[in-house]
Amino acid sequence: CGYCDNCLAGLPEACENVFIGADSQFEGQALSMGVFADGGLTRYAVLPAKFAYKVGPDTKPELMGLAEPLAGCGYAIEKLNVHVGDTACVLGAGPIGLMFTALLKASGCRKIIVSDPVEYRRNKALEIGATRVVNPDTEDVGKVVSEETDGLGVDHCIEAVGPLIQDCIDYVRPRGKVLQYGHDELARPQIEVGTLLKKEVELHSGFLGKYYMRKVGQIIESGILPLEKILTHVIPASRYQEALDLAASYQCGKIFVFMDL
Amino acid sequence: CGYCDNCLAGLPEACENVFIGADSQFEGQALSMGVFADGGLTRYAVLPAKFAYKVGPDTKPELMGLAEPLAGCGYAIEKLNVHVGDTACVLGAGPIGLMFTALLKASGCRKIIVSDPVEYRRNKALEIGATRVVNPDTEDVGKVVSEETDGLGVDHCIEAVGPLIQDCIDYVRPRGKVLQYGHDELARPQIEVGTLLKKEVELHSGFLGKYYMRKVGQIIESGILPLEKILTHVIPASRYQEALDLAASYQCGKIFVFMDL
Amino acid sequence: CGYCDNCLAGLPEACENVFIGADSQFEGQALSMGVFADGGLTRYAVLPAKFAYKVGPDTKPELMGLAEPLAGCGYAIEKLNVHVGDTACVLGAGPIGLMFTALLKASGCRKIIVSDPVEYRRNKALEIGATRVVNPDTEDVGKVVSEETDGLGVDHCIEAVGPLIQDCIDYVRPRGKVLQYGHDELARPQIEVGTLLKKEVELHSGFLGKYYMRKVGQIIESGILPLEKILTHVIPASRYQEALDLAASYQCGKIFVFMDL
Amino acid sequence: CGYCDNCLAGLPEACENVFIGADSQFEGQALSMGVFADGGLTRYAVLPAKFAYKVGPDTKPELMGLAEPLAGCGYAIEKLNVHVGDTACVLGAGPIGLMFTALLKASGCRKIIVSDPVEYRRNKALEIGATRVVNPDTEDVGKVVSEETDGLGVDHCIEAVGPLIQDCIDYVRPRGKVLQYGHDELARPQIEVGTLLKKEVELHSGFLGKYYMRKVGQIIESGILPLEKILTHVIPASRYQEALDLAASYQCGKIFVFMDL
Repeated sequence: CGYCDNCLAGLPEACENVFIGADSQFEGQALSMGVFADGGLTRYAVLPAKFAYKVGPDTKPELMGLAEPLAGCGYAIEKLNVHVGDTACVLGAGPIGLMFTALLKASGCRKIIVSDPVEYRRNKALEIGATRVVNPDTEDVGKVVSEETDGLGVDHCIEAVGPLIQDCIDYVRPRGKVLQYGHDELARPQIEVGTLLKKEVELHSGFLGKYYMRKVGQIIESGILPLEKILTHVIPASRYQEALDLAASYQCGKIFVFMDL
Repeated sequence: CGYCDNCLAGLPEACENVFIGADSQFEGQALSMGVFADGGLTRYAVLPAKFAYKVGPDTKPELMGLAEPLAGCGYAIEKLNVHVGDTACVLGAGPIGLMFTALLKASGCRKIIVSDPVEYRRNKALEIGATRVVNPDTEDVGKVVSEETDGLGVDHCIEAVGPLIQDCIDYVRPRGKVLQYGHDELARPQIEVGTLLKKEVELHSGFLGKYYMRKVGQIIESGILPLEKILTHVIPASRYQEALDLAASYQCGKIFVFMDL
Repeated sequence: CGYCDNCLAGLPEACENVFIGADSQFEGQALSMGVFADGGLTRYAVLPAKFAYKVGPDTKPELMGLAEPLAGCGYAIEKLNVHVGDTACVLGAGPIGLMFTALLKASGCRKIIVSDPVEYRRNKALEIGATRVVNPDTEDVGKVVSEETDGLGVDHCIEAVGPLIQDCIDYVRPRGKVLQYGHDELARPQIEVGTLLKKEVELHSGFLGKYYMRKVGQIIESGILPLEKILTHVIPASRYQEALDLAASYQCGKIFVFMDL
Repeated sequence: CGYCDNCLAGLPEACENVFIGADSQFEGQALSMGVFADGGLTRYAVLPAKFAYKVGPDTKPELMGLAEPLAGCGYAIEKLNVHVGDTACVLGAGPIGLMFTALLKASGCRKIIVSDPVEYRRNKALEIGATRVVNPDTEDVGKVVSEETDGLGVDHCIEAVGPLIQDCIDYVRPRGKVLQYGHDELARPQIEVGTLLKKEVELHSGFLGKYYMRKVGQIIESGILPLEKILTHVIPASRYQEALDLAASYQCGKIFVFMDL
């Protein structure tokens, strides 16, 4: 909004008014149009100029549908400062986990271990850049991580499920970095303080992107990420039930629903 | 030790051989003399040159007794990058919490809130630089933090007890930093994932210092920290029971026991 | 302004419209009131709410006159991540150099060497926290730095003059950090590439503050910096010639001119 | 060496004894075998275990010949914290410039502009991942950078020639990062202080790698960098004149000379 304590401190992502709706007295920039204020579920909408980012005419609109989640992931992964030759592990291969897999691959990781109980998703992860996938229901993820890293642990571990923060702490090497991104409001996982300390783990967490929307448009436009493999289905709103069934089946990546009503 | 995977990666603080004893085949630098190998509880010891740091003749030997714990605290607090004008909270005002209070003061914090149930320690904290102290048994620490920071939360929260990591997450502002330093091997505190995420908290943990011993000698020598106020008692080893009783009473800061046997 | 490429990237300090004046079509936030648009040299001015920061009633108005330059210095020095026990050198002890001296002291530096040819300023620097002052016209600054740091060089060197960047490179230790802050549009100093490389120097530069105004108000309010020693004179606008003469004599720190017209 | 001030401060890359030779009284680790001490130009050499890193049997020995320069480049580029979607410019496409091009590509840059007067090298750069190449003798590099970045400048500019530091400052965006890597002991380029400041440029410099040898072995082993395209020739020592002529012609990348004598 530009007026609250957090905005004045350069933390618009923590704006105290981010959840306000259309009846607010604030200027346009605090409105989450399409979320807490009208603006979504329609073919056309009038937006403040500040909300609009230009992309080239060849950029597929459905890929731009990944902009919001990708901005969150892209902004969050910058906190880890991944370098060429690093090793990483991603827990969860839903659309968010797959985006992180693609981002880690694009960042030059030499090993990316992805864990998910669903076979379709594990295969997607491999297609996108995972160097090894694990089924946590039948395999010991920690053992695989140890095997792949000569017993050292990975440099980075990304949580894209919700309650698995301690697993991340277990899988990183000493001085490794953990990113908690899986958002489960009810999760209350326990942490082993001794393990955290002796490894001197650095833990980051991500929620919304910040000053990242322009960049995410440029990333999608540039084609450097295999987003077409993550966006597995494009379905018109008139057939929304199909989209919901598909999502429930886990036999999909991200589904793009477009307005044909 | 210089040979294990962690040492080769520039992580001597995570050396796989740090806990080895005197019967090891390794060179001197891996030996924790006085801890896992002989060398303590004696008036004189022969040390490898690499283990010895020179300080000025005016530096009191008992203050040098703070070098090891201060190295851990000083190295760990560097991870927070505290800046002039920041606000901070320290949970626990034992010797470690008091050292962090002194370090925060020396780093230019404009508010330092220290919480401890023991009155002696709260008074020590005030003497060392706390701008406000709280008794967590009778007061609501979160309410005090909120009051002192216009409802925003502190920039930095240091855990110097063991199981209070979630309190730290609660007390920091959005994008605030938490340092877990209290070392309790049995602690398994629960974390609210949603709070961690929505504040985008950055969490660090500290265990041993790294390349910090020379600096700690220089800090003690320079007198920039009020260490004489933290080192409250100097007791000869011949009266060790007195030292133990004092420590158990909590009516002390750090106790220095010197060899007179 | 919030609309240009730099603002959208979270770089308002590099706003392409920062130099625009009152005839602009942009909203209030891009106007530098009192600089490129009307608003200064008057007792009262109507400001957009976003430009106003509240401070306590006990805060002296003349100290708030230091807010703008202090915001630049405070924001810039955060890039160096100064830690307790570090060593530093400041070239130039004009008002800007003195603010950096105060900030370094407040950051816990154990040695602060300040160089300036004017005796008044060197004395001010000592009063504010310098541990040693040097007259560059009669002494060899590099030799003093070497003496004070056992031949190693300082951790941080701040340029508050203009063309002395190579001196800074010479005075820092290997892996030391340099902050170029002295702003001389005509300066074209030469750099020794070999020295820069072999020391692996990290160089930062500062211009305007960013999201720092609220913090600067809090810092001034808190009294943690000895700003009354830097603000040496308060002179009414009706006697402005006196202020100009004083500034030209170098026998002063910062002069605050208030409106009595 | 482990004993000098810099080694004790965790800065082995700035070891004061790095240039000593075989007649030194220091232990093995300070010896630059094959450089300042015997050990090169021979088929077999006995090395201290600390100097040896294991790689898989499938890793081509000639690629391992790139380990030393790649360690310097890989370690230096980590200072820039390149992120997916960033833009970059490399001045110079000799073997070092080509390695940086490969590292930037592997780091996820969406635009990599490479400048070199030699056509062979520009073609190599394109092969390795440059998105655009420029001949600085016939084209205006700054204009190309501006075109490719909508007038903003690149996020990162790497100097791999020697005296072109001001060009790098000109080509980066506000808050952009420059890496000086081209090592020319005689270069004394001039810097425009005003430009440096108003862009708030961050400048890094690189010399030797640090704790990076193990990683460089893993990177080469993993095949994530197109090093076979940078290592253009493998020539036996018995035909060394051929190698020298080739290097002088600029019609090559890195040349690997192996011992057949």
